Amino acid sequence: MRNIGLIISYKGTQYAGWQRQENALGIEAVIRDAIFDATGERVTLYGAGRTDAGVHARAQRANFKTDCRIPAQKIALALNARLPRDIRIMQSGEVPMTFHSRFDAVGKVYSYRIFAAPIADPFIDDFCWHTTWRLDVDAMRDAAKYLIGEHDFTTFMAAGSEVKTTVRRLDRIDIDEKPHAGGRLITLTFQGNGFLYNMVRIITGTLFAIAAGRDVPAQMAAILASKDRSLAGPTAPARGLIMERVLYDPDPLRES
Amino acid sequence: MRNIGLIISYKGTQYAGWQRQENALGIEAVIRDAIFDATGERVTLYGAGRTDAGVHARAQRANFKTDCRIPAQKIALALNARLPRDIRIMQSGEVPMTFHSRFDAVGKVYSYRIFAAPIADPFIDDFCWHTTWRLDVDAMRDAAKYLIGEHDFTTFMAAGSEVKTTVRRLDRIDIDEKPHAGGRLITLTFQGNGFLYNMVRIITGTLFAIAAGRDVPAQMAAILASKDRSLAGPTAPARGLIMERVLYDPDPLRES
Repeated sequence: MRNIGLIISYKGTQYAGWQRQENALGIEAVIRDAIFDATGERVTLYGAGRTDAGVHARAQRANFKTDCRIPAQKIALALNARLPRDIRIMQSGEVPMTFHSRFDAVGKVYSYRIFAAPIADPFIDDFCWHTTWRLDVDAMRDAAKYLIGEHDFTTFMAAGSEVKTTVRRLDRIDIDEKPHAGGRLITLTFQGNGFLYNMVRIITGTLFAIAAGRDVPAQMAAILASKDRSLAGPTAPARGLIMERVLYDPDPLRES
Repeated sequence: MRNIGLIISYKGTQYAGWQRQENALGIEAVIRDAIFDATGERVTLYGAGRTDAGVHARAQRANFKTDCRIPAQKIALALNARLPRDIRIMQSGEVPMTFHSRFDAVGKVYSYRIFAAPIADPFIDDFCWHTTWRLDVDAMRDAAKYLIGEHDFTTFMAAGSEVKTTVRRLDRIDIDEKPHAGGRLITLTFQGNGFLYNMVRIITGTLFAIAAGRDVPAQMAAILASKDRSLAGPTAPARGLIMERVLYDPDPLRES
C-alpha cells in the first residue's frame, strides 16, 4: 500500500464543484472514476479543499491510498489519458503514509479576478467577474489592510457553515491592476492559514462594494468586528475564483 | 434606412462556426436573433469572414441594414443585453450605405496558439493546440519566410473550396514564444490581403511539422510550389485559431 499525492489543475466551469452533488458532476468523482479505470480500485480521494461549482484550481492537492503497481510519477500520465480536457493532473508522486492533503495543509493561496470594463471579454469571461462599475483600486487596497492578521472572520462566512473556530490568519491580500481589452483587470491574491466557507468571495464582494463607493475603506474595521454577514458585501461570483496553491511544511511533492 | 457596422468578439468553442449549420448553432444566426429581438427586423448580417466551428474572433466585423431608431452606437448595448456571454458586440456605429464587411475588407489578421508542454493547461485549453512535441521555433520562423509575399497558396487550401483565384498576399507571419505553465506558448500571427479556406490552419500544421523535424525549413519552398495539399502538414485544430482583426481602408468604425 502506498499513499499517492496529486497536484490537480482544473477549469471548474462545467462542474458542480470539487465534491459530488446530487445529480451533478463533481471533480473529485471524475478523478476517482479515472483512478478506478487505471487501477481497478475504488479509492477515497482526500482533497485539500472543496471548491464550489464554477470555481477553478491551478494546483488543488489530493491524495489516495493504492495497491496498484503504476510507478507513482506515472500515475499523472495514466489519469490524464482518462480525464476530460478541463481536468489535468500536473504531478503525481509517493507521499508518506501519514500525509493527508487537507489536515496537513498549513495555508492556501487563492486569486480572484475582476474585469472592470464597459463590455465583457469572452476570452476571459469564464475566469472573472465582469463589472461596468468604475472601481477605486486604492480604496480596495486601503480596506484590505484591516483584514490582515489573525481575526474572527465570522462576518465573511456563508450562513449555515459548521466549523470549530471562525478565527483565521490572513497573511496577505495583494491587489494588482492592469489594462486589458478596453478596461482594467484587477487580480486579488489572498494567502492565509485557512479560509471559512465562501470567505474569499465574500471579502472580495465587500472590497468591491468599497471600491464602488458604497463604504469608505475605514468602514472595513467595523464590518470585520460586527460578525454580521449582512454588513459585508455580496458573495462574488464563483467564476472569478481560482485556488492557486496549497501550502505544506514540508511539501511532500515539490511543485515544478 | 441605415447601414450599421459591428465589431464582434466571440469564443467559438460552443458554436458550429460563424454561419448556421444544419441543426447546429451558428454565431451569425444568434446575432441575427438578437437583432430581431431588439428591432423587430429580420435582417441579413454580412460578416467579414466565416470562422469554422471552434474558431474564435477578437474583432470579427459585420454589417446590416435597418430602419430601427436605436442610436447606432447604442445598438451594441441593446444586442449585448440579448446575447449569450460568449458573444459580445464591442462596438456598433453607422457606416456608409455602400459599406460591405466582406467585400470592402483589404486584409485580415489571424493568430494561432500552440502550447508545447508535457501537460495541457485547462486555463488556456479552449484557445490553443496542446502538443507534447518539442518544437524548434527557429525552424518554424525560417520556414515561414518562404510564404511571405504574393503566391498561389493552393497547397494550403482545404479540398472542395471554390474560389476565383488561389493567389493571396501574405504580409507577415510573426512567431512569438514565451514560457507558460511548465511549457512554451507559441503564438503565430498572420496578416494578409485574404486567406483561402483553412489556409491559416494548414500553414500552421505545416510549420508544426517542420518544427517537429519532419521536414527541413527550406522544404517549405517546394511544398508551396507543389500545389499539392498532401505535401503540407495536418490542418491545425480549430480551437487555436483567433480572427484578430479585419482591415479596411478607410475603416468606417474606428476600433478602440
